[in-house]
Amino acid sequence: MQQTAEGVARPAGRPRSEKAEKAIIDATLDLIGEGIGVAELSIEAIAARAGVGKTTIYRRWSNKEDLVVDAMASLKPPIPLPEQGASVRDALVTYLRVIRDESSQVRTRCIMNIAMSDAERHPRLAERFREIAVEPRRRAVAAVIQRGIETGELRPDLDAEMAMAILSGTMMWHMKWAHQDRQPSDDLAERIVDEALKGFRPRPGED
Amino acid sequence: MQQTAEGVARPAGRPRSEKAEKAIIDATLDLIGEGIGVAELSIEAIAARAGVGKTTIYRRWSNKEDLVVDAMASLKPPIPLPEQGASVRDALVTYLRVIRDESSQVRTRCIMNIAMSDAERHPRLAERFREIAVEPRRRAVAAVIQRGIETGELRPDLDAEMAMAILSGTMMWHMKWAHQDRQPSDDLAERIVDEALKGFRPRPGED
Repeated sequence: MQQTAEGVARPAGRPRSEKAEKAIIDATLDLIGEGIGVAELSIEAIAARAGVGKTTIYRRWSNKEDLVVDAMASLKPPIPLPEQGASVRDALVTYLRVIRDESSQVRTRCIMNIAMSDAERHPRLAERFREIAVEPRRRAVAAVIQRGIETGELRPDLDAEMAMAILSGTMMWHMKWAHQDRQPSDDLAERIVDEALKGFRPRPGED
Repeated sequence: MQQTAEGVARPAGRPRSEKAEKAIIDATLDLIGEGIGVAELSIEAIAARAGVGKTTIYRRWSNKEDLVVDAMASLKPPIPLPEQGASVRDALVTYLRVIRDESSQVRTRCIMNIAMSDAERHPRLAERFREIAVEPRRRAVAAVIQRGIETGELRPDLDAEMAMAILSGTMMWHMKWAHQDRQPSDDLAERIVDEALKGFRPRPGED
């Protein structure tokens, strides 16, 4: 989905369809957030909520599942590429900050929970969501870790998949289970990365 | 909730109420698993599904939220205490196996997702669930880690909360995001613990 920043003059062409697309995505997320399951969600209801006709939706999405996948993917934007020359630590901190920011939004978390519980009954939806929103992140982080192994910042036998699971899982755990009265500290991403790096860095006296 | 193993003669007293209690908990979980939100869930519907009268429910639970909390807690049993003399590694592997087993059950995962998305709108429910089902585990694992620090198996500056987040979060990540075609391997708990211990053990040359 392409979005135009508020206040910036839209380039010529397709302004109406972009606006409609955003309204359709928002309507879909709103309905899921209100607890409408994927099974009960109807193109009619989405069209009514978005204030568009059904054909406007079908012009862009051939079926409901594809629309739900795109709506969910809009909540998980791709992580920014690390700046040229950034250390592995900085790149991983950036990654964890993205995860922290998106899971600190109650609406996002709520919709993801509902959608994932629904996904158990809709394996194809879950699979496509993984392809569109999870796999690109996995590849981006795997590339950062691979680069860290090459530069010697990380130990050569580090399992990239396990390293990503440790980083993302630890952040997810904090956002889900931390005490409500203990807000995640501003430096949570840094603390997780520094803790994880204690196990990821080459061991002294080894290659 | 007390349960009597199938096929074992029940001790005298309270057999009927135990059976009713299990039926009520199961009915509550079934309804949540079908997507009935906590707001719409009614004692009437639970009583009808469980085949008991409403008074039977009210005799045990004074309100719906308490019943939902107990039903959710029944999905997260306390982790077994480590055997006397077990190593920290073995105790942590046992803990992660419990998390793996419960999150490998689609129904459990589905209900927990729904309940947690609902909990966003019911903070008191989320808070009580944490007290009943999350905090006891947190304390049990913190005790294992504390013991490991005392025996020298873990480094003295290890943050118990962060260590638990790394262990549980990494397992949760694997159960949630791993490829569908890649079943979690039988030794996943061991692999996670061994990877985490690389960062948790005392560093060579330090105290």
